[in-house]
Amino acid sequence: MATTEDASTIGLDTVADLAAQLRVDSIRSSTSAGSGHPTSSMSAADLLAVLITRHLHYDWDQPHRPVNDHLIFSKGHASPLLYSVFKAVGVVSEDELMNGYRRFGQRLEGHPTPILPWVDVATGSLGQGLPDGVGVALAGKYLDRLPYRVWVLTGDSELAEGSIWEAFDKASYYGLSRLVVMADINRLGQRGQTDVGWNLPEYQRRMEAFGARVLTIDGHDLAAIDQAMTEATGDASGSQPTVILAKTIKGKGFSEVENKDGWHGKPFPPEMAERAIAQLGGVRNLVLRGPVPAAAEPGPVPDKPTTLAPEAGQQAKPSGAPPEYAVGEKVETRKAYGDALVALGARDDRIVVLDGEVSNSTFAEEFTRAFPERYFEMFIAEQQMVAAATGLAVRGYTAFASTFAAFLTRAYDFIRMGAISGVDLRLAGSHAGVEIGADGPSQMALEDLAMMRAVHGSTVLYPSDGTSTVALVDAMAATPGISYLRTTRGGYPGLYPAGEQFPVGGSKLVRSGDADQVTLIGAGVTLHEALGAADILQAEGIAARVIDCYSVKPVDTRTLAAAAEATGGRIVVAEDHHPEGGLGSAVADALLAAGAQNLHLTHLAVREMPGSGTGEELLAWAGVDADHIAAAARKLLAG
Amino acid sequence: MATTEDASTIGLDTVADLAAQLRVDSIRSSTSAGSGHPTSSMSAADLLAVLITRHLHYDWDQPHRPVNDHLIFSKGHASPLLYSVFKAVGVVSEDELMNGYRRFGQRLEGHPTPILPWVDVATGSLGQGLPDGVGVALAGKYLDRLPYRVWVLTGDSELAEGSIWEAFDKASYYGLSRLVVMADINRLGQRGQTDVGWNLPEYQRRMEAFGARVLTIDGHDLAAIDQAMTEATGDASGSQPTVILAKTIKGKGFSEVENKDGWHGKPFPPEMAERAIAQLGGVRNLVLRGPVPAAAEPGPVPDKPTTLAPEAGQQAKPSGAPPEYAVGEKVETRKAYGDALVALGARDDRIVVLDGEVSNSTFAEEFTRAFPERYFEMFIAEQQMVAAATGLAVRGYTAFASTFAAFLTRAYDFIRMGAISGVDLRLAGSHAGVEIGADGPSQMALEDLAMMRAVHGSTVLYPSDGTSTVALVDAMAATPGISYLRTTRGGYPGLYPAGEQFPVGGSKLVRSGDADQVTLIGAGVTLHEALGAADILQAEGIAARVIDCYSVKPVDTRTLAAAAEATGGRIVVAEDHHPEGGLGSAVADALLAAGAQNLHLTHLAVREMPGSGTGEELLAWAGVDADHIAAAARKLLAG
Repeated sequence: MATTEDASTIGLDTVADLAAQLRVDSIRSSTSAGSGHPTSSMSAADLLAVLITRHLHYDWDQPHRPVNDHLIFSKGHASPLLYSVFKAVGVVSEDELMNGYRRFGQRLEGHPTPILPWVDVATGSLGQGLPDGVGVALAGKYLDRLPYRVWVLTGDSELAEGSIWEAFDKASYYGLSRLVVMADINRLGQRGQTDVGWNLPEYQRRMEAFGARVLTIDGHDLAAIDQAMTEATGDASGSQPTVILAKTIKGKGFSEVENKDGWHGKPFPPEMAERAIAQLGGVRNLVLRGPVPAAAEPGPVPDKPTTLAPEAGQQAKPSGAPPEYAVGEKVETRKAYGDALVALGARDDRIVVLDGEVSNSTFAEEFTRAFPERYFEMFIAEQQMVAAATGLAVRGYTAFASTFAAFLTRAYDFIRMGAISGVDLRLAGSHAGVEIGADGPSQMALEDLAMMRAVHGSTVLYPSDGTSTVALVDAMAATPGISYLRTTRGGYPGLYPAGEQFPVGGSKLVRSGDADQVTLIGAGVTLHEALGAADILQAEGIAARVIDCYSVKPVDTRTLAAAAEATGGRIVVAEDHHPEGGLGSAVADALLAAGAQNLHLTHLAVREMPGSGTGEELLAWAGVDADHIAAAARKLLAG
Repeated sequence: MATTEDASTIGLDTVADLAAQLRVDSIRSSTSAGSGHPTSSMSAADLLAVLITRHLHYDWDQPHRPVNDHLIFSKGHASPLLYSVFKAVGVVSEDELMNGYRRFGQRLEGHPTPILPWVDVATGSLGQGLPDGVGVALAGKYLDRLPYRVWVLTGDSELAEGSIWEAFDKASYYGLSRLVVMADINRLGQRGQTDVGWNLPEYQRRMEAFGARVLTIDGHDLAAIDQAMTEATGDASGSQPTVILAKTIKGKGFSEVENKDGWHGKPFPPEMAERAIAQLGGVRNLVLRGPVPAAAEPGPVPDKPTTLAPEAGQQAKPSGAPPEYAVGEKVETRKAYGDALVALGARDDRIVVLDGEVSNSTFAEEFTRAFPERYFEMFIAEQQMVAAATGLAVRGYTAFASTFAAFLTRAYDFIRMGAISGVDLRLAGSHAGVEIGADGPSQMALEDLAMMRAVHGSTVLYPSDGTSTVALVDAMAATPGISYLRTTRGGYPGLYPAGEQFPVGGSKLVRSGDADQVTLIGAGVTLHEALGAADILQAEGIAARVIDCYSVKPVDTRTLAAAAEATGGRIVVAEDHHPEGGLGSAVADALLAAGAQNLHLTHLAVREMPGSGTGEELLAWAGVDADHIAAAARKLLAG
């Protein structure tokens, strides 16, 4: 029988009842589903019971109110606890909890996803919820300037992930005092004790060394939890994130499993669940809600750590007009990226930019100079960079994040989880391929197209000149899901007049005629090589069609199929990428899916491990330069 | 004019000369190349001058002597310094330094790679050299049991990478007292001050909290460096890694650039280089070598932290005979992976295993129980796991590392760099695809095949039953480069008799006949679905050829092309993976490269974002189950 109590009157005895209910419901839901993590839920039930009744300021009927606090389960496997909380506040029914958890077509998934309106981000890959929370807290402090707090529940196993320490580093650097981490230290990981176990002083030293204020408590002492949360929220003028470091017991509340190995990720069999529920005082149906946030206006703009050199000085306000480059003018697409961001930022104040300490290479620094208040330096921490972009996206900001394309591989798990979170992320990777030359293979992205194409719902763009870059950056701002822009280190001549349109999913017939004998397909730097090849072939009397495949995903199947048809199926695709999963695969997949026949496709790609050299030398060595494209075309025509 | 001095007599005045030479040569080589990082080299020159003359025990004429110390430049961009060291010890000539650095076809690449025999691992993606060094030190302490030290030079910018803290955590957990980190704290990153700047106490607190002994010094005081290195190496009985935390000045030695912004990654123009060289006392050609290691026998087996539950007890010594499974017997391929590791480990004592705290899911724990001394628990730190495997491979061990396939995305940058390092890494990812069911998308690898295929020289394997798993695990032990095994959560019936051969690059015609009308291609779980589809079709009078494409890369082009030819080009490929870059792409790329004609290829893959459910429900939902494969085949035949 449901009862509702007013937040101001919820005593700790009722909170204790609620904690028991959360445990019981965690057990019931996982047993009914036949899978899930009851014991990992039970260790944190007391923390959550105190939080939701007394400290979380949240309007459950309006989950998207800007003033709401945020609650992120970084330990996403404790989903039974989260969903039991949702039942306890009355937004999920008993029926949904018991019959929807982990079932096909239902929204109470095995690990939380934002299909649920009270969930900000998908978690379940450990060590991501806290970095995501740093992004939300950055938005709260510097952009929304609203007093909401970000509460993150972490497990202890996930504290071994380096991304957690990237998050603490940035949280303290940016003074995110409204970030509160509830660390559920239950000692046991999936298969035994964690590396730090119950050595809470060791955790405390690490967290303090990374700039956090740490309150160590018994995570099952409701009064201690309440006091720690009061302390965590009492002094917003502090400049540190707070950790409530809670010593807890896995399986707490059911003596048969408490602090025992072998019960991670296992639901209790029905008879055992019955004993547990009895021990916990039976099924309850309390419905309790805590405080609702007061309306608030954005506060004053806070000081923000800056990475701008003092001599950067004040810039004239950019106009917002898209930058223009002349046909034939040499421009690096990475420079055009920076220019385009500035124009976009002038037109839309929800545009924010992040970079991994290479903004003078990616040209994100153009934006930094123009809009320092909307730039977040993530230093060399690519995982946190993508996570912060995710958190900023949760708050509705249009985040662009950049680094060398090769180093986005560092954040692949975060990008993948961003897709599951359903957030819109704009990623830009510079210095792609062997074209970068002297720096060598560690700096050469040769897997990035494959990696980004494989992300669900992603958009992969690869412009060849300044004009197309500007158009595609603008398009990214309006593109849902994960979008990726690959930029080039060197400057190449402009191909398109300012203002030319580049729709996502399109392509450009850069050269074509009725007598075309072969199709040459390139993107980015290899488009310039394909054009060079077309010149060579033309001098030999061979007419080549050249396609700028700037939209690698979605790819322009119609134009590709028409070109195949028109040129006897003879196609040369050249890319500055390993052979698997990139432009060549996109073209091959599209043509086969379209049922194209009579195909004679030659795929030029980087098939060996490159070393240093000039870009020209390496494009030739890899066999993706104009000469090799022309030779491949000749061979197709001879064949 | 070259001079050679005996190690025992090298005074600090000579070391100072050497340090000046290293700076001058760093300047000369980068100026001659027109790119590179002289200032990042100059800050660490004093550390290296003292190290190589007095503390590094290394036989430069026999770089592969097992007793040699190891020197890893985690700040790989300081390659001018490393190559100047190589000149100073007489293994690289003046000519090579001045004319080979960063040039095409030469071995002094922009960032160090093991093309050079004195380089263990490729660096240049920051935050990786230290984790790699942890792997080498693990080998030294627990496997080689030799007294060599691992010296790692880190920059300060890279201390923002979470992987650095994963490394410190594991170095202290495993008591790697012979790991010495030289942290070059020169304050300046690529585009300005690092987030911690010259706040050395803050770094010291962090490192100490993570279990290191920290010696903070002036990194330009040769006597202080010498004393710190003496202290670092004096007491090997300690259990902590040591950090020599050196306050340094970027560009040290040339007043025009010292501690100045704007000089990261920029060679000095020739006239400026001349001024710098003059200020540093001109060009020198000292050739100096430090101590050579004494011969040593492996020491006693040290205690090693164990994650085995006490009740694991002593196991009977496994026989080494490959495990056998009956045709029709249901077995999870992940279980077969664990069984196969045990047999392999019994036959070859250089087999070592690592896991990311999920060994009871990946079944790596079978090996842990049998050979605890050769198992390294990396807890939930996938980057460090792959890096440790890399370091173990450097010392000649055959390392297998496993976690959920989805979480290998966390380590993609490390895998990519492993390929550049030329090490042999064996990676196993369990719980692939929607087949895992209830846990939801965060745990479902749906990008792993694309990610692994795009790695240079990789081998990608995906067995469908116990017998093929055992054969492929054995094959991996003998496979150079990066090899990847994808395993499945659920148990499926054995298809092959024990002892059947599964060569890398091969495939199996599981069903075939002269009258085959359509080819069905699957791997892993979808092979079982393809067989189900063949049954359905057979009942309708349609003969289907079924191919087990267990070797996704390299793929068996000949068998695929022959099947296409035999079945009128009608092919259905089904995979439990996103559509891009996986099995379907491998098949499409191969057929087009082979010039196959008249293709009618239907590609079934996971095209939407999955939720929870049973494996069966989700395979059906994704359209990759037997019914959908049969329907696709019918449509091809109708078309």
